[in-house]
Amino acid sequence: MLGLGLIGGSIMRAARAAGREVFGYNRSIDGVTAARAEGFDATEHLDEALARAAEQRALIVLAVPMFAVPMLLERIAQEAADCPLTDVVSVKGAVLEEVRAHGLLARFVGGHPMTGTAHSGWSAGDADLFAGTPWVVSVDDHVDPAIWAMVMELALDCRAVVVPARSDEHDAAAASVSHLPHLLAEALAITAGEVPLAFSLAAGSFRDGTRVAATAPDLVRAMCENNADQLLPALDRTLELLTAAREALAHNGSVAELVEAGHAARMRYDSFGRTDIMAVVIGEEGWREELAAAGRAGGVIRSALPVRDS
Amino acid sequence: MLGLGLIGGSIMRAARAAGREVFGYNRSIDGVTAARAEGFDATEHLDEALARAAEQRALIVLAVPMFAVPMLLERIAQEAADCPLTDVVSVKGAVLEEVRAHGLLARFVGGHPMTGTAHSGWSAGDADLFAGTPWVVSVDDHVDPAIWAMVMELALDCRAVVVPARSDEHDAAAASVSHLPHLLAEALAITAGEVPLAFSLAAGSFRDGTRVAATAPDLVRAMCENNADQLLPALDRTLELLTAAREALAHNGSVAELVEAGHAARMRYDSFGRTDIMAVVIGEEGWREELAAAGRAGGVIRSALPVRDS
Repeated sequence: MLGLGLIGGSIMRAARAAGREVFGYNRSIDGVTAARAEGFDATEHLDEALARAAEQRALIVLAVPMFAVPMLLERIAQEAADCPLTDVVSVKGAVLEEVRAHGLLARFVGGHPMTGTAHSGWSAGDADLFAGTPWVVSVDDHVDPAIWAMVMELALDCRAVVVPARSDEHDAAAASVSHLPHLLAEALAITAGEVPLAFSLAAGSFRDGTRVAATAPDLVRAMCENNADQLLPALDRTLELLTAAREALAHNGSVAELVEAGHAARMRYDSFGRTDIMAVVIGEEGWREELAAAGRAGGVIRSALPVRDS
Repeated sequence: MLGLGLIGGSIMRAARAAGREVFGYNRSIDGVTAARAEGFDATEHLDEALARAAEQRALIVLAVPMFAVPMLLERIAQEAADCPLTDVVSVKGAVLEEVRAHGLLARFVGGHPMTGTAHSGWSAGDADLFAGTPWVVSVDDHVDPAIWAMVMELALDCRAVVVPARSDEHDAAAASVSHLPHLLAEALAITAGEVPLAFSLAAGSFRDGTRVAATAPDLVRAMCENNADQLLPALDRTLELLTAAREALAHNGSVAELVEAGHAARMRYDSFGRTDIMAVVIGEEGWREELAAAGRAGGVIRSALPVRDS
């Protein structure tokens, strides 16, 4: 486990609870000390952690912010290039590019546990953080069946449900359901903050609509800026819808079109149901496309799929 | 009480619980029957209710949707023009205009209890609906001190906290903290609904950001369309902020400006505290301006202010 923050520290706890051997590295000694105090095997020496991973052919989990990914990949390429590798960063295309640039693509399968809390660091971690929540495991064209299965099993051991998805589709979806809502929340908070009396009258719709504006600006910037290619079309679509509504309101006194379509979309979301993916064999011809299609349709993996020839 | 829906029915219950005499009218017999079954004094005959109100000089509360307001004002002007009059409609400027057009301005003080539930009708009502929630009482230039005090006392008897505000300031604030969030939620739901995989990955930020898109389209349209004059500048400001962020992201790869200002605004909201208004005497020179300024600064009335010469 490279990085013992909220997500890395929670995976470490959940993996140990599932009976796995797990050891970790953290850049700052504080996280290491805190993990050790709870009986975890942790070091602040990256070379030690990587040498041990290389020796055991351990699955390496990159659990650091995007900005720290290139430096770690460089060290992994030097010291543990044969280890299977996954990550938990919230944008998948940017990580994939870095992994490719460092020549580590063959043994890499990206991941993104879709969970979190408002807090960070080892002490915020929780073995139950992933229980019942979606954990995206990338099914890009290059992925190796055996390593894909390893990452799936890690996620299932953490009691997550696995959503198979291509990196580009993950990033487009995350742009619309996560990054765009952050930008709208920021704009709403600013707009209301400029109106006298607004905070005094603010109730549920304002609180809900701006809740994520309380997220630390650096985190919001990192997720939005590292996913700009996918976020821009989503933002453009929203600007188009709002501009059309503005014109309709100004000239015809009506917001019917926006409001009816928005209500219909939210109703579709409310009735959106997950199905279980059970019939796919990892490694059989077309398995990646099958899993991507199933994930797109709302399918999740709740118990390990079989792997061909395993 | 003219209208025995969620708000009217709740005021009726809360007013009776406070020891007041209260009687009501509802257009449909269903609401009347339901109210009577709980021992309330209710009729489906508007002329009866208005004759009784006129005889007793009762405070009339308009608790109907905006579209029904003109018809009721016409009848009030004919049959109970001397009664003090308030309302609970969520836009204040539009009601004020109608009241003025019907010659009823002198005895009118607008109101808006800032509360609600997802349900409607008499059966959804609750005597506790207003407990601790803001109830705006308009301090427009024309308002009469004695009638203002009556409306304040009704709101306090319902255990609300009274926020004094001018109708135009109320509407500008409501546009930014209530109507604008609805439009953003609709646009977000539509945008995400067009992206494959989006609903499958949707979590807290999408759910919060689109919660109010589940509101019945007719209600959203009524609040937005009846407040178009105030909603348009708020929407324009949000479009300006989002367009600037779009350009900064596309050309400089940064959303820093929006995100930092949004976070700062939300932090200001989180630390926004209410103060108690206690030093104003209703009816003394400048009392309306004093109350409007106090409300703007976060002040609320928690126990009845004194009235000059009363």
